[in-house]
Amino acid sequence: MKEVYNYGRVTIPTDVDVIPQTKEMLEKWGADAIRDCDGTDFPQELKDTGAKIYSTYYTTRKDNEWAKANPDEVQQMYLMTPFYTAEGAHMEIELMKGLYPDMLKPNPKDCKRWWEVVDRTEGSILDPTVWEFDEASGKVIFDCAKAFHEYTVSFLAFIIWDPVHMYNAVVNDWKDVEHQITFDVRQPKTREFTMKRLRKFIEEHPYVNVIRYTTFFHQFTLVFDELARERYVDWYGYSASVSPYILEQFEQEVGYKFRPEYIIDQGYYNNQYRVPTKEFKDFQAFQRREVAKLAKEMVDITHECGKEAMMFLGDHWIGTEPFMDEFKTIGLDAVVGSVGNGSTLRLISDIEGVSYTEGRFLPYFFPDTFHEGGDPVKEAKVNWVTARRAILRKPIDRIGYGGYLKLACQFPDFIEYVESVCNEFRLLYENIKGTTPYCIKKVAVLNSWGKMRAWGCHMVHHALYQKQNYSYAGIIEALSGAPFDVKFISFDDIKENPDCLKDIDVIITVGDADTAHTGGDVWEDPAIVTTIREFVHNGHGIIGIGEPSGHQYQGRFFQLANVFGVEEERGFTLGYDKYNWEEHPNHFILEDCTKPVDFGEGKKNIFALEGTTILNHKEKEVQMAVNEYGKGRAVYISGLPYSFENSRILYRSILWSVHDEENLHKWYSTNFNVEVHAYVKNGKYCVVNNTYEPQTTTVYRGDGTSFELSMDANEIKWYEI
Amino acid sequence: MKEVYNYGRVTIPTDVDVIPQTKEMLEKWGADAIRDCDGTDFPQELKDTGAKIYSTYYTTRKDNEWAKANPDEVQQMYLMTPFYTAEGAHMEIELMKGLYPDMLKPNPKDCKRWWEVVDRTEGSILDPTVWEFDEASGKVIFDCAKAFHEYTVSFLAFIIWDPVHMYNAVVNDWKDVEHQITFDVRQPKTREFTMKRLRKFIEEHPYVNVIRYTTFFHQFTLVFDELARERYVDWYGYSASVSPYILEQFEQEVGYKFRPEYIIDQGYYNNQYRVPTKEFKDFQAFQRREVAKLAKEMVDITHECGKEAMMFLGDHWIGTEPFMDEFKTIGLDAVVGSVGNGSTLRLISDIEGVSYTEGRFLPYFFPDTFHEGGDPVKEAKVNWVTARRAILRKPIDRIGYGGYLKLACQFPDFIEYVESVCNEFRLLYENIKGTTPYCIKKVAVLNSWGKMRAWGCHMVHHALYQKQNYSYAGIIEALSGAPFDVKFISFDDIKENPDCLKDIDVIITVGDADTAHTGGDVWEDPAIVTTIREFVHNGHGIIGIGEPSGHQYQGRFFQLANVFGVEEERGFTLGYDKYNWEEHPNHFILEDCTKPVDFGEGKKNIFALEGTTILNHKEKEVQMAVNEYGKGRAVYISGLPYSFENSRILYRSILWSVHDEENLHKWYSTNFNVEVHAYVKNGKYCVVNNTYEPQTTTVYRGDGTSFELSMDANEIKWYEI
Ligand SMILES: [Mg+2]
Ligand SMILES: [Mg+2]
Ligand SMILES: [Mg+2]
Repeated sequence: MKEVYNYGRVTIPTDVDVIPQTKEMLEKWGADAIRDCDGTDFPQELKDTGAKIYSTYYTTRKDNEWAKANPDEVQQMYLMTPFYTAEGAHMEIELMKGLYPDMLKPNPKDCKRWWEVVDRTEGSILDPTVWEFDEASGKVIFDCAKAFHEYTVSFLAFIIWDPVHMYNAVVNDWKDVEHQITFDVRQPKTREFTMKRLRKFIEEHPYVNVIRYTTFFHQFTLVFDELARERYVDWYGYSASVSPYILEQFEQEVGYKFRPEYIIDQGYYNNQYRVPTKEFKDFQAFQRREVAKLAKEMVDITHECGKEAMMFLGDHWIGTEPFMDEFKTIGLDAVVGSVGNGSTLRLISDIEGVSYTEGRFLPYFFPDTFHEGGDPVKEAKVNWVTARRAILRKPIDRIGYGGYLKLACQFPDFIEYVESVCNEFRLLYENIKGTTPYCIKKVAVLNSWGKMRAWGCHMVHHALYQKQNYSYAGIIEALSGAPFDVKFISFDDIKENPDCLKDIDVIITVGDADTAHTGGDVWEDPAIVTTIREFVHNGHGIIGIGEPSGHQYQGRFFQLANVFGVEEERGFTLGYDKYNWEEHPNHFILEDCTKPVDFGEGKKNIFALEGTTILNHKEKEVQMAVNEYGKGRAVYISGLPYSFENSRILYRSILWSVHDEENLHKWYSTNFNVEVHAYVKNGKYCVVNNTYEPQTTTVYRGDGTSFELSMDANEIKWYEI
Repeated sequence: MKEVYNYGRVTIPTDVDVIPQTKEMLEKWGADAIRDCDGTDFPQELKDTGAKIYSTYYTTRKDNEWAKANPDEVQQMYLMTPFYTAEGAHMEIELMKGLYPDMLKPNPKDCKRWWEVVDRTEGSILDPTVWEFDEASGKVIFDCAKAFHEYTVSFLAFIIWDPVHMYNAVVNDWKDVEHQITFDVRQPKTREFTMKRLRKFIEEHPYVNVIRYTTFFHQFTLVFDELARERYVDWYGYSASVSPYILEQFEQEVGYKFRPEYIIDQGYYNNQYRVPTKEFKDFQAFQRREVAKLAKEMVDITHECGKEAMMFLGDHWIGTEPFMDEFKTIGLDAVVGSVGNGSTLRLISDIEGVSYTEGRFLPYFFPDTFHEGGDPVKEAKVNWVTARRAILRKPIDRIGYGGYLKLACQFPDFIEYVESVCNEFRLLYENIKGTTPYCIKKVAVLNSWGKMRAWGCHMVHHALYQKQNYSYAGIIEALSGAPFDVKFISFDDIKENPDCLKDIDVIITVGDADTAHTGGDVWEDPAIVTTIREFVHNGHGIIGIGEPSGHQYQGRFFQLANVFGVEEERGFTLGYDKYNWEEHPNHFILEDCTKPVDFGEGKKNIFALEGTTILNHKEKEVQMAVNEYGKGRAVYISGLPYSFENSRILYRSILWSVHDEENLHKWYSTNFNVEVHAYVKNGKYCVVNNTYEPQTTTVYRGDGTSFELSMDANEIKWYEI
């Protein structure tokens, strides 16, 4: 176990002012790739190191000359105004209210066709002949408003300042910077120009080995308000991937008329919580096909010029959808993305159809962390230990860092720590490469999105905290590093092919009622609900967190109430006396708990049906319960934020739900702060301490034999099977 | 103020074994009426006292001979079985599962017409030809079930043990008591019999002055499970007011075919939380007309025989609906009901169309309170002081007590306290009779039920606590004793006549989304939502508690989001950044608060729109906010359980919402434990200490002049204006 893997699989940033340090770090960290520095000649000394050189390439910006010469091919986005209340017949709706004026500019061309004025009180569209857009005032005006109806305008606007460029300018307080305009590669002139521009770029950067696309064509939705504060963000948002040019193609392909509302979605912009409409799913599929086709053209040029093509999973990634079939056809060599936790690690490492994946680790070498009194080692440790759980299940192929190397060099402890991370990563990669780690069970996370939102199904803005979702995202985070084969399936998958559940042991459904996370009115479809009931009844498991199958219909709010053995009190059943309140805190699932379970936000008003076993209720609001259903079992949990203790609860829930309690002691650590991962094909297993303190535990091997073990903080130990 | 009103307006219970005590109490409490003792000859000595004598009359029971001779006219109720899951094509559904076998007996007559087997997974009715009822096993059986669909059976059952009689038998552990069968006065034979029976009863009880009907024909829904525990109760439930005889009449009158589902309502039985369907409203209206007609027949007989007719507001009161127009046509002399708090007091005292109302006060003279170590005085004080607030707004005409007088006589303190209550009641009745107390504002509680559920609109089982509604019922309780003219209006009222809002100052809407308390899909009707927006915009107030106007539609969950300035986060708007979190704890509305506001259950996920003034949020979940809308104002509160402090918050909210802050100091006590009520026409006002401790306060008269006042515990002081 003493062998040191001291070279490769690591990317570092550089700059013209840190050439010696770059060379030192290449040596010290065993890095084999360097990120190009923006806008300067790349130093010959670094070209001579033999390290691969990455160069960031901006497909849609950094050429204002082109953008200005072709204003009709500047990118566009759909926006909805706030709700305006009519006091009388005359209405004036200011389109840009609440929006940053330098970023967006309404596009009035053919506005009668591409815009919609909607009476939100009636849910009706105003006849386009009754309103006018007054360009001078920026207002939509009409004289047939109905008093105290509320109106919105859905309109297209040009993105005259790239949102990420604007964000960087605002955050870094850049003065007098020229606003980078976003042009639309999907449109004919820019498409032709782009291919030439790409060839020219490659030609002018012969030393570059890897073109790192940031990204392709469409920015995720990001809008700022009048004060330049973020106003709306959706990392998965498609509303900035539109233009009449694109939408006309869409209409032709799907054979029905496009409506702005398909994108606007009442102002909800089809965000991840919304049960997706057929039209939006059609649009996404169309975009995937078109984006893949066009991206392939760029990748082909890249390859033709002898370079590798790497995609950054961020910024303009919309339409690429790395977990969908079209993605593989792009022919990319690599994907790189930022790693905030286990879920975002798997968001990268689970991508198929590329030669390698790379994770950018935290902290970035920026002054917010690398200042006097800052503790970059602590941040790095948290990031590494959090991500390591997930790497041990499905490794990325490379790790990397970003920012200013000069800053990092001022923290020798940090330099040391990163060296150890690099070595540890290379060792574990060596030990587990080419294998599938031992999986105790195969679980399927079920929602309306399925594999398209694999690992990211409870994210709004990448890995950022939301009070409304951390209690659900915790399940995904726990799964990202747990010894299960995890699939993400959609209700459509079940509808199209009920056999997709054939090799699944346990279904997990997580989220609030009437959202895409739990399905909404999909539960009115007998094909769905009976398939799932039958799945459990036949001996499988189901775990529901939050308001699983929540949708008011035919006398139930939880359509799987009889399966989970719990229902939500919405007032309608207050007349029914409820006698089942006994708690069973010593249940198998809770046997390792050291304190009251943290349900996060939890849920109110859940009660148990007769015969259900309550594990926990708070003042007669059930937080956790289990139920037998036919030969199968169901577990209800009100919420489960990520923690090592909660991960253990989920682990035991999964085993219990498929009657597999007796196999608990296989590749298992009695102390839940420590986890065991086995790589049977490679004859290795490891034991990993996820905490920053020493731990002792009993480790069980796959054959049920065990040994005691003491571990240092964060330690990972490798063993032969 | 020293005048003592020592006689009248009080009813006491008696018994054959307490004749001297009864006479003593008549004297001591100044009682002028005695309740008959059940089943014994009434003593001559008491007949001679000159007190009025009430006799309880059971319209639908206490004649098993008749019931047994006419089993076809035993009362019936609709019941729905639990959900049964089909594993294959063969299904057997046991009707009486979960029900007490001695109370109910399925009525298979014409069951193909009056029963329904429903596929709850499809929401479809099974063709009646495919199923059979097997009387021997008590099961509905069919062989065309679809696997993993869930089925229910809606069926009629005879009520072979009166639910209240059963309840009394179980609670008092009566052994070998003959079960009283409930017969149906609505049906022809029993109707004829009943009128004769009534005449006979009156004839046999010549000394009785008042026939106290308990009540008329239909028991509120009350069902017991196999263990004789209460299984389902709805004090407002109509499901035990049905029979084929009645339903055929209903069909003829409304002109459409009856479906069991109109009563079953997916197993929710049209309880108060359910937005009422047209069919259920039709059925209630039909029942009101028919019940009034038949009750009038009994009342007419009563009058013909020279007696008064008093109705007990409980037990078989269904269909009488004292706040609806039909009620007055019955011609009753009086209504009596149990007083649990201010709301239940108003439930009686606000009834119009009778000569007098009477409130039965707590505690009942039962051993649960009147035992060694018991503290009946304390219970009496709580009951009296709680009810007194409401009496001061709208008095009942009489008070009374029930139970065993013998028990009460063993507690001399209690006898003394009741004497003081009786005197206090008579004094206040004298002071306020014939006047309308001074009302600061006219407020309308708006929901789907309107005046039909006045004062009882957040009750499930009379005044019993429910975790899910105490935070809402608190508003109604506060209003019951507050100086406002309170109306209860329905969305139908607004739809039929928007002018019904003309003399209203403030609308109050209280409850959870998608319930009858807040209206559900009524918000999709532009006529409703625009009328309310306009009402506020024109300068009126609106106060919303819980999830006012909550119904997902057209980009909003709160359809009055722009009015209240708050919206609920259901995941769909997580992408929108929210910057308005500043709290304004020193707002006019909160100026008297002594501690953090108690919002009861409160609400999660409420956020404020831009421009809204937040008074309180908890970890970015708004609990209270105010907003200007046109010339009007809106107040949002997440919940407001009843307390003196919360009553003050509601009081100030109402004033603030109509821009009337400057009139705060009118008939006002600075200390919220003390209230001021003015009776301008009678030239009186009173100051009342609602607490059990002494209080000091500044009292403001109607002209704004003030004086300091110290009050004893519970004290009421009367002044001339
Ligand atoms: Mg508990
Ligand atoms: Mg008015
Ligand atoms: Mg606060």
